[in-house]
Amino acid sequence: MLSLALVHFPCVNKQGRVVTTAITNFDIHDIARAGCTYGVARYFLVTPVELQQQFARRIVTHWVEGWGAEYNPTRGEALANVSVASDLASVGDALERDFGTQPLWVVTSAKPYAHGITCEALRERIAHENVCLIFGTGHGLHPEIIEQADAILEPLKGPMPFNHLSVRSAVSIYLDRLLGTR
Amino acid sequence: MLSLALVHFPCVNKQGRVVTTAITNFDIHDIARAGCTYGVARYFLVTPVELQQQFARRIVTHWVEGWGAEYNPTRGEALANVSVASDLASVGDALERDFGTQPLWVVTSAKPYAHGITCEALRERIAHENVCLIFGTGHGLHPEIIEQADAILEPLKGPMPFNHLSVRSAVSIYLDRLLGTR
Repeated sequence: MLSLALVHFPCVNKQGRVVTTAITNFDIHDIARAGCTYGVARYFLVTPVELQQQFARRIVTHWVEGWGAEYNPTRGEALANVSVASDLASVGDALERDFGTQPLWVVTSAKPYAHGITCEALRERIAHENVCLIFGTGHGLHPEIIEQADAILEPLKGPMPFNHLSVRSAVSIYLDRLLGTR
Repeated sequence: MLSLALVHFPCVNKQGRVVTTAITNFDIHDIARAGCTYGVARYFLVTPVELQQQFARRIVTHWVEGWGAEYNPTRGEALANVSVASDLASVGDALERDFGTQPLWVVTSAKPYAHGITCEALRERIAHENVCLIFGTGHGLHPEIIEQADAILEPLKGPMPFNHLSVRSAVSIYLDRLLGTR
């Protein structure tokens, strides 16, 4: 079982300093739609900023209960799995309430790390365990999140040296590799 | 060799009627970044609307030549492969100028069609041929584009019945399947 956490704090900026990023509407929709296609259990938008939490909840409510639900019911179906959390501890608590255990925390990064887990190996674990895959925004997750994780997923690499996928693309490709049927 | 065409006309709306959709900034960036990661030759935004063409060119120019190029050079690198075309005939002409032949036209659709080509089979052809993969916007490509294509690529299917990926997610997943290294 796989859940997703999109972290807006603590992240780093271009200079490697800690920042809080803003929630992006396209991140809510694109990742929820991909999650619903691939059978993700829950998708958490993680931000400690109360106004940003309200912003995200307002978008989700519009499509799940508001007039958006009538205009485009499939969008509401996708967004019904979206939750807002103030930090990863709250995500862990919610997953423990739902599934009985704290999740295996797996971070993603565009940079390669020693001892990374492969998509193939993680796919096996997802079949039997409660796994939460963590994505950063801005210029990536703060190192403290990476250090505290149980595992680091191998980075996505295309055939080119260029390696700057949007988080929306990265999530979509990982979901296809981890949960896709061929 | 693989190129991409993102078509804004002729597409269909919810009711199946022909429409021209608006260019979306996130489609420009996300698909250009994924294309650059996976080694896509050229990425065309297709719209007959002159004001929309100007809008797209202005965004591309900002990142390739404007102050965006200094602020984030990797974004300029990704957007350097983006072109604007008024229709698919112009895309074919541009690809013929670059690569000596008209492309093999392959359309994508969320619906399954008889005689679709698999990702595996298309991957083989991309290795030796000039291929242009066509994506629709709105509620999909107009049937006339689908009927005129040389091939229809198999739809992406996750394990769930829900099947409403964003075009940004669909392009990213197809690129990983068609050009990704494992």
